[in-house]
Amino acid sequence: MFKETLRQIVESTDGAIAGLLMGFDGIAVESYTRDEAAAGKDIGEIGMEFSVIVGSIKRAAETLEAGHAKEVAIQAENMTTLIRVVNDDYFLALTLRPDGNPGKGRFILRTHAPKLLADLA
Amino acid sequence: MFKETLRQIVESTDGAIAGLLMGFDGIAVESYTRDEAAAGKDIGEIGMEFSVIVGSIKRAAETLEAGHAKEVAIQAENMTTLIRVVNDDYFLALTLRPDGNPGKGRFILRTHAPKLLADLA
Repeated sequence: MFKETLRQIVESTDGAIAGLLMGFDGIAVESYTRDEAAAGKDIGEIGMEFSVIVGSIKRAAETLEAGHAKEVAIQAENMTTLIRVVNDDYFLALTLRPDGNPGKGRFILRTHAPKLLADLA
Repeated sequence: MFKETLRQIVESTDGAIAGLLMGFDGIAVESYTRDEAAAGKDIGEIGMEFSVIVGSIKRAAETLEAGHAKEVAIQAENMTTLIRVVNDDYFLALTLRPDGNPGKGRFILRTHAPKLLADLA
């Protein structure tokens, strides 16, 4: 069921390459990669890197009393990654080509997070 | 001269609380805090936390061959932080209230970064 939700997230976002549901411990629950982009990027490797980042952001937000971290967007030259915190244990990541539509991606992540949260329970 | 540029960045962005120019080693070059927001938040502490995060993002982007990280946006319950990488050694951070205008902030950071880059040389 996670795979189907991830497929919807990726296929609904222009320029999206891959979607990932992962624990903050770096262990992936499920991922979905768009066929055309399957060559090259390892979504598991991407997730491992970002689990470290999101973990440190969570800790920083608590230290700074900024409240819970909700969303992170990381724009690099060849890749944009959107991260949505689902709950204290899991996050969603969506990787886009630089010409993708991050605004649409954010919206899609936000609207699909409650479904994933329910499925995780 | 850095202070004046940071002042312009903060004062030009609706809901901005503070701006910071910092090295990836966590040492601040300069910061500017809007008077009304001076109580409470320590911009140096904020910067230290975010230098760790941006450093790990830089390393992840290189590992993933995503190219140089350019921008990071972190949305927490009580605070939004925008980060713009200026060069290999320095980044700009802008902290906003949750009701601030992050789109304007991104634009202002992008247009002011070349000026700061020139001043750092």
